[in-house]
Amino acid sequence: MFKTRLLVTLLALTGSISVASAWDALPTEAPAPQDNPTTAEKVALGQMLYHDPRLSSTGTVACASCHNTMLGGEDNRPNSMGVHGQTGGRSAPTVWNAAFNKVQFWDGRAASLEEQAAGPVTNPIEMGMKSWDDVVARLKTIEGYNQAFEKAFGKDSISKDNATKAIAAYERTLITPNSAYDKYVDGDKSALTDQQLRGMEKMAELGCTSCHSGPAFNGSGSFQKFPLFANGYFEAQFHFKKDKGLAEVTKNPADEGMWKVPTLRNIALTAPYFHNGSVKTLDKAVTLMAKLQLNKDLSKEEVADIVEFLNALTGEFPKQAMPSLPGTPGTTFN
Amino acid sequence: MFKTRLLVTLLALTGSISVASAWDALPTEAPAPQDNPTTAEKVALGQMLYHDPRLSSTGTVACASCHNTMLGGEDNRPNSMGVHGQTGGRSAPTVWNAAFNKVQFWDGRAASLEEQAAGPVTNPIEMGMKSWDDVVARLKTIEGYNQAFEKAFGKDSISKDNATKAIAAYERTLITPNSAYDKYVDGDKSALTDQQLRGMEKMAELGCTSCHSGPAFNGSGSFQKFPLFANGYFEAQFHFKKDKGLAEVTKNPADEGMWKVPTLRNIALTAPYFHNGSVKTLDKAVTLMAKLQLNKDLSKEEVADIVEFLNALTGEFPKQAMPSLPGTPGTTFN
Repeated sequence: MFKTRLLVTLLALTGSISVASAWDALPTEAPAPQDNPTTAEKVALGQMLYHDPRLSSTGTVACASCHNTMLGGEDNRPNSMGVHGQTGGRSAPTVWNAAFNKVQFWDGRAASLEEQAAGPVTNPIEMGMKSWDDVVARLKTIEGYNQAFEKAFGKDSISKDNATKAIAAYERTLITPNSAYDKYVDGDKSALTDQQLRGMEKMAELGCTSCHSGPAFNGSGSFQKFPLFANGYFEAQFHFKKDKGLAEVTKNPADEGMWKVPTLRNIALTAPYFHNGSVKTLDKAVTLMAKLQLNKDLSKEEVADIVEFLNALTGEFPKQAMPSLPGTPGTTFN
Repeated sequence: MFKTRLLVTLLALTGSISVASAWDALPTEAPAPQDNPTTAEKVALGQMLYHDPRLSSTGTVACASCHNTMLGGEDNRPNSMGVHGQTGGRSAPTVWNAAFNKVQFWDGRAASLEEQAAGPVTNPIEMGMKSWDDVVARLKTIEGYNQAFEKAFGKDSISKDNATKAIAAYERTLITPNSAYDKYVDGDKSALTDQQLRGMEKMAELGCTSCHSGPAFNGSGSFQKFPLFANGYFEAQFHFKKDKGLAEVTKNPADEGMWKVPTLRNIALTAPYFHNGSVKTLDKAVTLMAKLQLNKDLSKEEVADIVEFLNALTGEFPKQAMPSLPGTPGTTFN
C-alpha cells in the first residue's frame, strides 16, 4: 500500500500519472480453474442456462433477471426481486468481470463462480427451486438441454455440477475491456481528461486504491470492514450495519461488517450502491466511502473529479447473440 | 370453407396433398401500417424497449418476460406473472408471428401491434406503471434512449406513441419461416412425413382449418366462439367459460365466449394451451378442440397424426443480437 501511494505521489509531482505497475489494464481473458477449462460448448450451454427462467420454481426468474447482461450486469434495484415478488436485503452485484473476483457474493461466501452459481437457484426468495435434484429433473425433460450438455460434457451429463460449471464458463466470457482508463494505462495519454486524471490521482492519494486495487479495482479478493468510521447519523440514514456481512455466514463476531471489496469497473452503470443498495447516486457513494472508510470530508470538486474517473472505468460490452432456449413439449409450471 | 374442404378432399383422394392455394407458406415479411413503416432504427429501439424491465414499476418485468423471444415467444406458464408475483387469468400468447394476427390479445381487443404494446405496461398486474407519462418521464432520464429515439423518430421524440411504434416495428421482425410445412408447400415433397401428411389431411377433413386458416393458421383475425359443444364435465375440469372473452371488454352478451383464433405456428413450443392455459399437452389440446368445437371424438391415431403435423409448424427462429440496454446514472426503483 505504502509503495503504491509513494509511487503515485511521485508521479503526481511530475505533473501526470504515467503507466506504472500499480495501474493495470483489465485482462481480456479470465483464468479458469483446472477442473473447468473454458470451451465454446460450455459457454454456449452456460449462456442458455443463465438466461433460462425455467431454472426457477415459477419459471419467471433467470440468473439474468437480477444479473442482467443487457444492462450493467445487475438490475438497478436496491435489492433484487425473486420468485413471487420477494426481496432480500442485498443489492445484486454485477456479473460483468465477476470472473476477476477471488470470492463471490457480497459476503464472499463462495470461493468460485461455480460455487456461486449453485446458490440462488435454490434460495427460496431468489429462484425458489426446492432442490438441485428438481432442477436436474426439469432440465432432463427438455430434449435440447440433453443435447447441449452432451456437447459440452458428454453423454447423459445433466447434473448440478455440470450446470454450474457451464454457467461459470459463460460468466468468464463477460469481460468489459477497453475503458478509457484501460486505453490510458495502455499508453493512449489522450484517453483520460484532465479532470479524470485528477480523480485518479486523488483516489490513490486518499487511499481508495489500497483496497480497490488491481486491474478490476476489487482488491484481489480481500475482505474489508465496512463501515469503519460509522456513527449514528449515517446508520440512521443508510442502515449499513443491519446486515452483518461475513458474520451472517460464519457466526463469528470478528467477521461482523466484513465484506468482499467490490469491483469499481462499470460502476457508473450499477446504481444504486453498497451492499444494501441504499445510496442512489455515485457522487453520494464516493462522499460516503471517503467519510466512512477514510474519515475524510471531500470537497465537491474532489468528489466530481473522482466520479469522472469512475466513469472512465465503463468498458466495452462484448456483442452477444441472443441464446435460443430449447423448447419443451409440455409445461411444469402451475 | 366448403371450397377448401372440397379441394382438400379431392386432393386427398389422389393420395397426396399437393400445393394448393388453401395451404400457404408463411410470408417472410409482415405488412406494416402506413403510419409506421418498418425501419432498422425503429426495430433496434423496439428491441431495446421490448427487453427492458425498466418499463415496469419494479424494474423486473419486460415485455420479453412473458413473451420470451428466447423461448417460444411466451413463458410456458398457464398464466403470466407480473410485478409483485401477481397473476391474471390468461396465458401469454406467443409474440412470434403475432404480426400476422389481424387483432391482438386473446379477446382481440387491440386492432394493431401498436395498440397492444401500450396495454401491459400500465396494467397493474402486468408491468404496473401508473401511466405512460411515468414511462416517458423515466425513459427521458436514460440518455441512451434519448439518442435511440432521435435516430428512429427525430429529436426529442420520446413518447408513448413512438415507444409503441418501435416495439411494434420490432415485433414485425419476429417471423419464423421455413418450417417443415413451409418447405412442403413450397414444393419439397420430402419435407413432411407420411404421418404428418395424414395429420394435415385430417385437419382439413375435420374442419380445423376452417377457422385456423391462412399461412399463420390464425383465421386472418376472425373471432370464433369457444367452447361450442361444452358440457359440465369439461367445464368442471378446465373452466373455459369462466372468462367471457370479448364480452369482458364489450359487455355485450352476444360476445360471450368469443375469442381471436390463435395461430398454430410453433404451437409445439407454447404449452400450456387455451386462453386460460389449463391444458398441459398438445395431444390433450387437439382432443379437446375436436370435441368442443366439432363435437368429434378422435382416435388416438388421429390425435397422434395431427400432433405430428402441428410439430411440422415449428419454424426457424431468426438469430438475434442481444440488445445492449442504455445505462442510467441513478435508479428509480425502491
